[in-house]
Amino acid sequence: MTPSSLHQLIEALRVLPGVGPKSATRMAYHLLQRDPGGAINLAHAIEYALANLKHCRRCNTFAETELCDICADPQRDAGKLCVVEMPTDLMMVEQTLAFHGLYFVLMGRLSPLDGVGAKDIALSQLLSRVADGEVAEVVLATNFTAEGEATAHYLAQMLQARGLAVSRIARGLPVGGELEHADPGTLAQALVERRPL
Amino acid sequence: MTPSSLHQLIEALRVLPGVGPKSATRMAYHLLQRDPGGAINLAHAIEYALANLKHCRRCNTFAETELCDICADPQRDAGKLCVVEMPTDLMMVEQTLAFHGLYFVLMGRLSPLDGVGAKDIALSQLLSRVADGEVAEVVLATNFTAEGEATAHYLAQMLQARGLAVSRIARGLPVGGELEHADPGTLAQALVERRPL
Repeated sequence: MTPSSLHQLIEALRVLPGVGPKSATRMAYHLLQRDPGGAINLAHAIEYALANLKHCRRCNTFAETELCDICADPQRDAGKLCVVEMPTDLMMVEQTLAFHGLYFVLMGRLSPLDGVGAKDIALSQLLSRVADGEVAEVVLATNFTAEGEATAHYLAQMLQARGLAVSRIARGLPVGGELEHADPGTLAQALVERRPL
Repeated sequence: MTPSSLHQLIEALRVLPGVGPKSATRMAYHLLQRDPGGAINLAHAIEYALANLKHCRRCNTFAETELCDICADPQRDAGKLCVVEMPTDLMMVEQTLAFHGLYFVLMGRLSPLDGVGAKDIALSQLLSRVADGEVAEVVLATNFTAEGEATAHYLAQMLQARGLAVSRIARGLPVGGELEHADPGTLAQALVERRPL
């Protein structure tokens, strides 16, 4: 009973992560009924982004040019390479103003349960990137989730075998954090990873 | 630092209901990185639906033809008109196989807090629809939410003033429901709306 173009739109919306049949239906009605201008804008933005975005040749993040702005910046310290999972993570690190090296974006994490293996993230590209003779230290800044930790462990082994210094961002209590409100796992890690003063 | 076409895609995704900046970013990365085929399919489905879907001239639901399949069916009882908020509600009523009349889809509900007034839903179209000389009873099947109830109340007054019989679908315990597990409001309504046997 649903017209086929409406049915196709609902099915097409289900490619979005976290969108099931009910949300897709609600989204389709909203686009058609309340915001056809926003809908056509969305269609064009998808097509434009697919046509114009590529991966930075050096760091693998999304860029419209061969080299992204950071990789093209001669002021950055080419001896340090920070490895993150996604471009959002890169932006979070940049916002700290605490890192002046270059980045490498894996565009994912190892996640065997989701069918994401070593071939699905940019590992081989990372290995050729670190072989440029300039990178001396790799800072692993993948998430502290099970998948992010596994990815960091795997990368550390591969990179150390190539004679690179590898570090991992610290785990511990947040700035301004109180022991009373920390979860036991984080507090345990903060004890284990205590640093001499 | 975000390339402009990526930024535009993230902004464009925010027209979807329930999608904030974080989900939009996640959706954009997913489309670009994991499912470019699904993304282009989505863009085409939006464009195709916008170009091909219109409202059924009689009942206001989405249709690709002037008259939807139900309105075009001469077997339906043209004396009964069931008013619902959205096409999904129409489908739910159809699935019961308990109603053989025709429908009218408001494409919304009165919701002053969201800026949806009488002009934003198809009220004037409903009034000309019920003036066809065939409709004798209007069954109000808007939701039992605050907005749906207000809409039903408003419609009932307008339709009764035009001499039409107006009814509202029943509230009460669900089929198979136990008093022990009913919420007090529903149970109270089931008592107030008890029917003689």
